[in-house]
Amino acid sequence: MSEHQFVPQVEIFDTTLRDGAQGEGITFSVQDKIAVARALDELGVAWIEAGNPGSNPKDMEFFRLARDLGLRTSKLCAFGATRKKGVTPQEDMNVRSLLQAETEAIVLFGKSWDLHATEVLKVSLEENLAMIRETIAFFKDAGKTVIYDAEHYFDGWKANPDYALSTLQTALEAGADRIVLCDTNGGSFPDSVEEGVTQAIRLAARSAAPALKALNRGIESEKGNEQGNEAALYELAGRLVGIHAHDDAGMASANSVMAVKAGARHVQGTLVGFGERCGNAALAAIVPSLELKLNLRCLPEGRLERISELTRRVAEIANVAVPDGMPYVGSHAFAHKAGMHADGILKIRRSFEHVDPARVGNDRRFLMSEVGGRSAIAERAKKIDPSITKDHPVTAAVAARLKTLEADGWQFEGADASFELLVRRELGKYKPLFSIERYRVVSEHPASDGTTCSNAWVKVKVDGTTEIAAAEGDGPVNALDGALRRALERFYPELGRVRLSDYKVRVINGNDATAAKVRVLIESTDGESAWTTVGVSTDIIDASRAALVDSIEYKLIRDIERRFKAYL
Amino acid sequence: MSEHQFVPQVEIFDTTLRDGAQGEGITFSVQDKIAVARALDELGVAWIEAGNPGSNPKDMEFFRLARDLGLRTSKLCAFGATRKKGVTPQEDMNVRSLLQAETEAIVLFGKSWDLHATEVLKVSLEENLAMIRETIAFFKDAGKTVIYDAEHYFDGWKANPDYALSTLQTALEAGADRIVLCDTNGGSFPDSVEEGVTQAIRLAARSAAPALKALNRGIESEKGNEQGNEAALYELAGRLVGIHAHDDAGMASANSVMAVKAGARHVQGTLVGFGERCGNAALAAIVPSLELKLNLRCLPEGRLERISELTRRVAEIANVAVPDGMPYVGSHAFAHKAGMHADGILKIRRSFEHVDPARVGNDRRFLMSEVGGRSAIAERAKKIDPSITKDHPVTAAVAARLKTLEADGWQFEGADASFELLVRRELGKYKPLFSIERYRVVSEHPASDGTTCSNAWVKVKVDGTTEIAAAEGDGPVNALDGALRRALERFYPELGRVRLSDYKVRVINGNDATAAKVRVLIESTDGESAWTTVGVSTDIIDASRAALVDSIEYKLIRDIERRFKAYL
Repeated sequence: MSEHQFVPQVEIFDTTLRDGAQGEGITFSVQDKIAVARALDELGVAWIEAGNPGSNPKDMEFFRLARDLGLRTSKLCAFGATRKKGVTPQEDMNVRSLLQAETEAIVLFGKSWDLHATEVLKVSLEENLAMIRETIAFFKDAGKTVIYDAEHYFDGWKANPDYALSTLQTALEAGADRIVLCDTNGGSFPDSVEEGVTQAIRLAARSAAPALKALNRGIESEKGNEQGNEAALYELAGRLVGIHAHDDAGMASANSVMAVKAGARHVQGTLVGFGERCGNAALAAIVPSLELKLNLRCLPEGRLERISELTRRVAEIANVAVPDGMPYVGSHAFAHKAGMHADGILKIRRSFEHVDPARVGNDRRFLMSEVGGRSAIAERAKKIDPSITKDHPVTAAVAARLKTLEADGWQFEGADASFELLVRRELGKYKPLFSIERYRVVSEHPASDGTTCSNAWVKVKVDGTTEIAAAEGDGPVNALDGALRRALERFYPELGRVRLSDYKVRVINGNDATAAKVRVLIESTDGESAWTTVGVSTDIIDASRAALVDSIEYKLIRDIERRFKAYL
Repeated sequence: MSEHQFVPQVEIFDTTLRDGAQGEGITFSVQDKIAVARALDELGVAWIEAGNPGSNPKDMEFFRLARDLGLRTSKLCAFGATRKKGVTPQEDMNVRSLLQAETEAIVLFGKSWDLHATEVLKVSLEENLAMIRETIAFFKDAGKTVIYDAEHYFDGWKANPDYALSTLQTALEAGADRIVLCDTNGGSFPDSVEEGVTQAIRLAARSAAPALKALNRGIESEKGNEQGNEAALYELAGRLVGIHAHDDAGMASANSVMAVKAGARHVQGTLVGFGERCGNAALAAIVPSLELKLNLRCLPEGRLERISELTRRVAEIANVAVPDGMPYVGSHAFAHKAGMHADGILKIRRSFEHVDPARVGNDRRFLMSEVGGRSAIAERAKKIDPSITKDHPVTAAVAARLKTLEADGWQFEGADASFELLVRRELGKYKPLFSIERYRVVSEHPASDGTTCSNAWVKVKVDGTTEIAAAEGDGPVNALDGALRRALERFYPELGRVRLSDYKVRVINGNDATAAKVRVLIESTDGESAWTTVGVSTDIIDASRAALVDSIEYKLIRDIERRFKAYL
């Protein structure tokens, strides 16, 4: 724990491994959980909520392995409920099992909404308070940091404000280190969140919370005795208060940020945003707002710049896509299509960009389209040859070529790799690395085993040498891809690591239906990065072939550049 | 325009066809645009912004065709910029071209941010005001409703509040019917939006805006002379003020809703939420909040219940997916995974659900049971057998079958004809009219003439008689379609008039790329009507075959009904 010195102004609490795992289609193996925890530690979040050891043996196994993880910035939490009715915490197996996780902190959830106590748990309002009080006291006695999640806080506060506040008061007095206001059903609006947070902070400031006293002592010894001032006390109390938002009304980001503006200093969510129903607050969409717009430090120095990469890594482990349009970290987040916008940005960046993409490790992209314009083309061509300007002859040549291709149904927005190859061809910085001499793809039904079957053979030529290979596939494109790469691997073994990660088809002019042109977009990855290529034809197989060829060429050229740059 | 009597409390303004088309990967054909406009009219939004006739001949073609669209609730707007510097509006081709769209309303965008005037447009602050004033006056003289989009309003107001407000004042005095505050870069937070809206409404209330006077007269004649009261004036002025939010900080929904809470009564966005960069405010995520939580009527009676279906339809046309976790309308929006949540819901619905999914035409989903959706199924099945109700056994059988098929990647929202066949099968009102015994599709390059060639042969059986036919095509699906119809025409000559009018492909689970499943949607027409069918398979040829078979069967069954109804 070499970075213990880092104290964030806002604590970031990630629950990808607990609430995130409630998302539809999300399951983590123990190894997945360890990989996610490492990624979150690299990002430098304060807390990682990693599961419920009482309800899940896989989670217990994770906590056992996690002891040797050597996390540098983040601390682990185990999650569980307050004790059951009618027993002591010691007698409740689920409560006791939380200690076996051996984490620094325990997250306990309890009920703030009277309806939930009486109708769901079927306990009296007094018994619910006793459950909160006794369970927190149990873990404080065991020397734990206790983060108390006030489930359904905002709904409870609307229904019965006095009771909701009394659950918080009880938690604070029992020794809770944090009280986290949960919008469990995700339906609250930012104004109620602000008001709810303000009330909770006021309550915390007036309370006899041991955690507040401890903070106060810390401040006094740091700064001398400056306490007593109302604003300072309120600020201090805000450090005890957290927010846990869900996105059912599309307000999780706004609710989290507005809670912080109201003084809360602990934000719970999942990095990518997945979770039960519409998901949890997406930390990758919130942390940049807090750091860049409210100037509140959440992560250690230099980590925000890695948030795009690490969000993609966590998504990859969970086997979901980072939404293209995700704020700050999505692949479309800084993509400009309208020519006017591209033109404006090149004049003054902030004219059409709310933050600098480099601050979050993302890239500005100008989408090549009929509306794009020369300045956008030059901007992208610079990556291949830095001397290219808006008035360079190659820019005009590329613009003319784009126009012809677009009229023919091609589209390079979203197909950066194909665009780069196009620029290379115009620059003369290109020589084919292979050619397809022949191919044949057959789909038939029934095949010999009675099912539908696709198979392909491909003959390629590399530097005068030919090679032929065949493959079966789940469909004709899959078969063609398999046969093509099998043939080329003899010459370029590095292609063994490439796989297609996405495949999209769009019919361009819908009126002639299946005789119309199709545009195929292929995303490929070698495990380290991803690139997208495009192909257009009246024949879907031929369009796919074009996109596959571009994908392979792009990969090979990048490897050549990387390995042989010194010689070139 | 039979529903002119409907006056919403909040005007919903959809810009899917204009700002939405700026989204990466979004392109609409003219036919797509018409289909989107029809869907939005079915939903009942107040305004449909349909494009920029000056910058785009495709948009002009749409407006020409749109005159015969017969929209019932929605009105069309054409979109363009204020005049260029140094000319009169009459002299500006782009300005004049807006009139050719022949829409009731013109949306004009102008600059509110001093930086944009001086550094991007390179005009003086005075000239910018003159551009706004004269262009609005030009369209008011032409008898148009003018919706003024104040681009970059919130950024401009932060940078130079007096100037930003003076642009609004100018627009109002020149006769603008609406002033719409745009968070063009999408980086504003709800508190600034609230404050910006409040200021704009205050300004509108104090202004000499002709639009305010007209409203005032309307109110006086409606209610007698009650005006004069400050709150009433403010409420009235709010009707002139709109919000246009983008999602770059994940706050588009919150900013839109908070603007309405602050008094604005016009909300711009795109139904599905796509648009430049992170997208526009997603109306499907906002309208339910306004109607169900703020009790403000946005759509005609009974339309909110169709918002899930129509959002999916618009997404299908744009060939994008509705995000699973999208608030209100996403497939996960009311899916409960945690056993505790499901248990809570079965005890008391609102315990874990912020709104009733039926209100937005969505379904609650649990791991164990399927309750929702039945009334929607019954509603649609009634077309085949009017006696079918929600409690009819066929409804349950169809629901169960749908559940299995949907888990397998099928989707019937945009495929009414396939859905009808599915209901017929469950009702026993179905007998196959033909079967495909074998088929084989070959794509090869180079073919004998040096090009890429696809060909197919198909063997069908009808009433014990087989027929075989072959065809070449522009691609494998075109070849298969040709061969199949050629073989069947011997038995069903009426198929000669059928042709495919649209063909769409969507990869369902992108992670295994070309080995993933594909869903094919086919639209067919016989010149009189059009119908859509769906097929799913790992193999695109096989998925196309399934959709082609449904398409042909649907056509044949309809002809049988029409010709032989008297005998049945």
